[in-house]
Amino acid sequence: MRIDGRTETEMRPVKIETDFLTHPEGSVLISIGKTKVICTASIEERVPPFMRGSGKGWVTAEYAMIPRATGQRNMRESTKGKVTGRTMEIQRLIGRALRAVVDLDVIGERTIWVDCDVIQADGGTRTAAITGAFVAMTLALHNLAIEKDLSDYPITDFLAATSVGIVKEHGVVVDLNYEEDSAAEVDMNVVMTGSGQFVEVQGTGEEATFSMNELQQLLEAAQSGLKNLFEIQSDVLGVAADLINERKAEL
Amino acid sequence: MRIDGRTETEMRPVKIETDFLTHPEGSVLISIGKTKVICTASIEERVPPFMRGSGKGWVTAEYAMIPRATGQRNMRESTKGKVTGRTMEIQRLIGRALRAVVDLDVIGERTIWVDCDVIQADGGTRTAAITGAFVAMTLALHNLAIEKDLSDYPITDFLAATSVGIVKEHGVVVDLNYEEDSAAEVDMNVVMTGSGQFVEVQGTGEEATFSMNELQQLLEAAQSGLKNLFEIQSDVLGVAADLINERKAEL
Amino acid sequence: MRIDGRTETEMRPVKIETDFLTHPEGSVLISIGKTKVICTASIEERVPPFMRGSGKGWVTAEYAMIPRATGQRNMRESTKGKVTGRTMEIQRLIGRALRAVVDLDVIGERTIWVDCDVIQADGGTRTAAITGAFVAMTLALHNLAIEKDLSDYPITDFLAATSVGIVKEHGVVVDLNYEEDSAAEVDMNVVMTGSGQFVEVQGTGEEATFSMNELQQLLEAAQSGLKNLFEIQSDVLGVAADLINERKAEL
Amino acid sequence: MRIDGRTETEMRPVKIETDFLTHPEGSVLISIGKTKVICTASIEERVPPFMRGSGKGWVTAEYAMIPRATGQRNMRESTKGKVTGRTMEIQRLIGRALRAVVDLDVIGERTIWVDCDVIQADGGTRTAAITGAFVAMTLALHNLAIEKDLSDYPITDFLAATSVGIVKEHGVVVDLNYEEDSAAEVDMNVVMTGSGQFVEVQGTGEEATFSMNELQQLLEAAQSGLKNLFEIQSDVLGVAADLINERKAEL
Amino acid sequence: MRIDGRTETEMRPVKIETDFLTHPEGSVLISIGKTKVICTASIEERVPPFMRGSGKGWVTAEYAMIPRATGQRNMRESTKGKVTGRTMEIQRLIGRALRAVVDLDVIGERTIWVDCDVIQADGGTRTAAITGAFVAMTLALHNLAIEKDLSDYPITDFLAATSVGIVKEHGVVVDLNYEEDSAAEVDMNVVMTGSGQFVEVQGTGEEATFSMNELQQLLEAAQSGLKNLFEIQSDVLGVAADLINERKAEL
Amino acid sequence: MRIDGRTETEMRPVKIETDFLTHPEGSVLISIGKTKVICTASIEERVPPFMRGSGKGWVTAEYAMIPRATGQRNMRESTKGKVTGRTMEIQRLIGRALRAVVDLDVIGERTIWVDCDVIQADGGTRTAAITGAFVAMTLALHNLAIEKDLSDYPITDFLAATSVGIVKEHGVVVDLNYEEDSAAEVDMNVVMTGSGQFVEVQGTGEEATFSMNELQQLLEAAQSGLKNLFEIQSDVLGVAADLINERKAEL
Repeated sequence: MRIDGRTETEMRPVKIETDFLTHPEGSVLISIGKTKVICTASIEERVPPFMRGSGKGWVTAEYAMIPRATGQRNMRESTKGKVTGRTMEIQRLIGRALRAVVDLDVIGERTIWVDCDVIQADGGTRTAAITGAFVAMTLALHNLAIEKDLSDYPITDFLAATSVGIVKEHGVVVDLNYEEDSAAEVDMNVVMTGSGQFVEVQGTGEEATFSMNELQQLLEAAQSGLKNLFEIQSDVLGVAADLINERKAEL
Repeated sequence: MRIDGRTETEMRPVKIETDFLTHPEGSVLISIGKTKVICTASIEERVPPFMRGSGKGWVTAEYAMIPRATGQRNMRESTKGKVTGRTMEIQRLIGRALRAVVDLDVIGERTIWVDCDVIQADGGTRTAAITGAFVAMTLALHNLAIEKDLSDYPITDFLAATSVGIVKEHGVVVDLNYEEDSAAEVDMNVVMTGSGQFVEVQGTGEEATFSMNELQQLLEAAQSGLKNLFEIQSDVLGVAADLINERKAEL
Repeated sequence: MRIDGRTETEMRPVKIETDFLTHPEGSVLISIGKTKVICTASIEERVPPFMRGSGKGWVTAEYAMIPRATGQRNMRESTKGKVTGRTMEIQRLIGRALRAVVDLDVIGERTIWVDCDVIQADGGTRTAAITGAFVAMTLALHNLAIEKDLSDYPITDFLAATSVGIVKEHGVVVDLNYEEDSAAEVDMNVVMTGSGQFVEVQGTGEEATFSMNELQQLLEAAQSGLKNLFEIQSDVLGVAADLINERKAEL
Repeated sequence: MRIDGRTETEMRPVKIETDFLTHPEGSVLISIGKTKVICTASIEERVPPFMRGSGKGWVTAEYAMIPRATGQRNMRESTKGKVTGRTMEIQRLIGRALRAVVDLDVIGERTIWVDCDVIQADGGTRTAAITGAFVAMTLALHNLAIEKDLSDYPITDFLAATSVGIVKEHGVVVDLNYEEDSAAEVDMNVVMTGSGQFVEVQGTGEEATFSMNELQQLLEAAQSGLKNLFEIQSDVLGVAADLINERKAEL
Repeated sequence: MRIDGRTETEMRPVKIETDFLTHPEGSVLISIGKTKVICTASIEERVPPFMRGSGKGWVTAEYAMIPRATGQRNMRESTKGKVTGRTMEIQRLIGRALRAVVDLDVIGERTIWVDCDVIQADGGTRTAAITGAFVAMTLALHNLAIEKDLSDYPITDFLAATSVGIVKEHGVVVDLNYEEDSAAEVDMNVVMTGSGQFVEVQGTGEEATFSMNELQQLLEAAQSGLKNLFEIQSDVLGVAADLINERKAEL
Repeated sequence: MRIDGRTETEMRPVKIETDFLTHPEGSVLISIGKTKVICTASIEERVPPFMRGSGKGWVTAEYAMIPRATGQRNMRESTKGKVTGRTMEIQRLIGRALRAVVDLDVIGERTIWVDCDVIQADGGTRTAAITGAFVAMTLALHNLAIEKDLSDYPITDFLAATSVGIVKEHGVVVDLNYEEDSAAEVDMNVVMTGSGQFVEVQGTGEEATFSMNELQQLLEAAQSGLKNLFEIQSDVLGVAADLINERKAEL
């Protein structure tokens, strides 16, 4: 059994609280174990300069942690005056992942700003952010689709992410907490659609390497964990979930 | 009656949820009406360079909003690469206010980092931040006092803050929400101790001015609102509240 | 008697030299004791983006010190690459204060840039800056009113500021020099109009607090000091002073 | 046949010119097709603060492009005043990858600074950078091993990287040039050791997704391309290549 | 004889490799002894804001070193987040010098971006940059003149630069390498046209001074060295050199 | 006659007011025509890291303008968040020039910070800054020499600077005002010692060039203007001037 009593393929308890905040077009508080992320989606009625005139929309994401989300206080990036490489890498990943399941032609020249603010971190913050951000974005786009009577449903599939890794004494494990993540020899983040297609696969040996066979096992473990997340997303999204499934069936 | 059905001297509902996060030495989620601020207190075992060797501690505060705390999304200060004047002004105020009720000699060469992260804004974020930060800081210092067996109780009085203002058709009102705040002719923030002493009084005419008489009325309105806040702080602090009162009595 | 031989309610010698520089539309060198500030007002024929199309003007201020204005050399903010919190707080205060006595509708879509550059500091630099900046701004707007034949006189009242404080052994004192300011228990800046209305009241206990009664005394001391400043402003402004009084009488 | 006349599994011509510069401890100019990267390795006799006292060394990388490495001139990051997210992501990847084949205990408290400066870009700059940087770093560490008589050979395996992708009309292709990269539906970077173990696998659907089966094919294509690179590295490294193989055999 | 076996008036071997890169409109690799600079010229079809509507073009230059161009690694300016004073001084000099021989009216509202990236430094990088940049710029403007059928040839004269100095035991020397430069008492950079007119003369005593007579000798030494550079430029420019000479003759 | 009624070789009226400010170790207000610069010298009891342990001192300079020193308001460099290239070039020049007449061994491990703040600009600000800074620095070092009983007088010669230029219709002129400077074809700054040795000669053709003969004339004109400045410096320095002359005689 793992540190926190889970089996190798067992995920931590997941909870997605929708409409967590009043102002944003879509918002959730996602908790995966002790990791807690506020995800909001805001709709802006214009696109960045490089997309103007294209008739297409854009999805972009930002990620941050409050200073005491972690065991030790981290200096704010605003105080440092710059965003770290880690943050940039994560926010680029979240934006790219979300764009894979949005029909940018359907939303028209609008930008969906997705903000993921980690208020408590215990490993897997970027994958929790993607999983929660998908729900926040869907809530915002669902209303947009109705209000603006969009030509088609703008979300084409479900999207979730999880981490998998290789940890001494346990081998392949799913949904690593902070302690496991720090000790992992191989660390992999997998972003997948509800149809089981990969969107991102990022596997890294931490001063270690992995074989083709291990890669295979990691991906299979991720797939089983992700199934769980798709069910929870589907539950909280209600009618929006049905419309996603309809749109997916058409494609 | 005011926009949200309150009388002129009525505060919005206040809720202080303690130990809201796992990692910080002290943490609360304070809600005043729709305004919600996460306040954390972190203890660092050293002081800034200008205080080294003094034998005294330091309290410093940082303040931020998540981008969608407000009706319109705000650009992150980390993305801008700098902290705005408004933020700096607020965090200097919070730090200064808290230092008024901490015995810096008793805590020794330690820094208390107080972080106030607004997750939902509806007016009065800086005063809610001070009121909540006081509780978070007390939770952290209470444990420090026990663990390190400090020579005295480090908190010397209660501390809370509220806004008051002059609004057309209503005159002097207490605890302004965002809509009232935007329309106010005079806006004042009052930080007070549990003993009724002022720590900060910042009154500003917004393209308007105020008389000595109006100033008097504003301060009296603030005092009545603050009483309410001290009671709530006292309730959630339990035994720590008693120890503050004891220390206060000794001084 | 105080350190420099003054009584508690006595201000330091004040001198306002107008048209100190050749290029600006309005400029003064104000000296209050050893504190010396160059204040200039520049008129720009446009407003910041958030005010375009409003038909109204804007007044904004910047504040700086030369590195050796003080006993110890300070690093330039341009070298640091950022403006400190203290500077931002002061320049926001100056701008806000000046806007209280300018009829922004009358000046039309123009920005008045007020620059306060401290060349020698001995306490009270922000209040000297406001007092001097009012004169520089009036000089600039007086000429604008004539040249552009504005519909009304754009200055609606006099404006000055002073500091007051509570200092051990002296109690309430007015116009604190650096040495007194460093030792003060309570420090208050008061910005007032010629009609005796408050524009800003910022009182701060420095690791101390103050009672309602003390607040009262501080404000009264400030009022007496400010009277002195209004007289000096009136003297140096000549005909402009008359026009301000006329406009004030109309309102 | 592909745009430039290659088959799907054919790499572009690769050339690694060693000791390209005079000053660095190790340096190469690597050309892969038209992509040209100067890679240098510098040895500093200390480690970053977080590693001091550990007895272990560190490898860190920086990546940049000269402004006209590309078809359109890019603004310098020094002129912008900040490093972009793309650059940070790449330099983190290069550093992490190189650390997988260096025995950090053997090199002791030293930092190896690896600089990859792209002087001409035609797709695959990050993988060319890793492949070239490995050689530059080995040249530097080979000499260090001799001069300082290190306890063991500090390089434990070969390391190279290539890109693979899924391109319309061609399916899976290896070593994409800029034109192919821009049109690819799936883009994957694979970093591998000489022993065939993965160090990094980063696969991304660009507004598209990929199946487990496609992932398999991509990885196999990458493996065949990488074989080619290991041979070239081995050729240019001469005796150092033998020592790497010896060390690898021991592990 | 000097350190590297040269006489006092002898320049180091000079080599200018044209069309060194594929993408830029003009590019060279210039080597002067061990100093190597990649110079590129890029044409942008617009001018900076302060020149819009003037009908004239602009030439601007940027200068950088890769971190290991020197004996000790230098931190990247992008990592520091700002450009040093030395770099700014050099890039202002290069731009100003090049503008002296370009007919800005003839090129019309276009900006010529000249980038000088030092890949190996051994003294005289700024003068090598000017000498190489002139060739890169001429290559770009030569093609522009043909493609756009400009009204006149846009280059009005040759332009090159060299360093001269006063070094102990040798007196006046030309084209100082790094070691000589570090020890020089007087250091002078001279930028001259092919007609022998000065464009820039920058002489500096390094904790030393120089007389009118020494200045005279320095300038004469520079002139003889520059003759050499004009011949090499003329050789590599071929037909463009003839057109410059024609245009020069007309003026 | 020139715009302002001067002959070609006539300088504008020069005034150097010593001990202009209270706090700095040395300070002057220098006026050259309408150009006015506050120069201060501050002594710090340590040197920058690169000089520690050398037993030698350092002189460094900073230069700035207040926003309304000029006809149009300039944005503050602190607001921009960076120092412009022009400022950096000027402050490097001032520091380098001053170091030529200071015996860095005599002052020991101290830094002399020289600040030149232009409060009114009408051409020649950098040369006025050097001329004034020399006096401010001498005042500071004169007192240091006495207080610390330095082994020798630390100033080895006088130092001043002026501009010369070639202007249409007038040819070579000395001490250009802003209007002349804007129209000059050739612009030269000359820094010289009291003994007539050059410290810096920086001549620039502004979209123009100059011959050896013109260079000669410019330098001669500068020399005559500088004589004037040395006399004024000598007058205001009194006994310090005698000590400089004594030290100069010894060398």
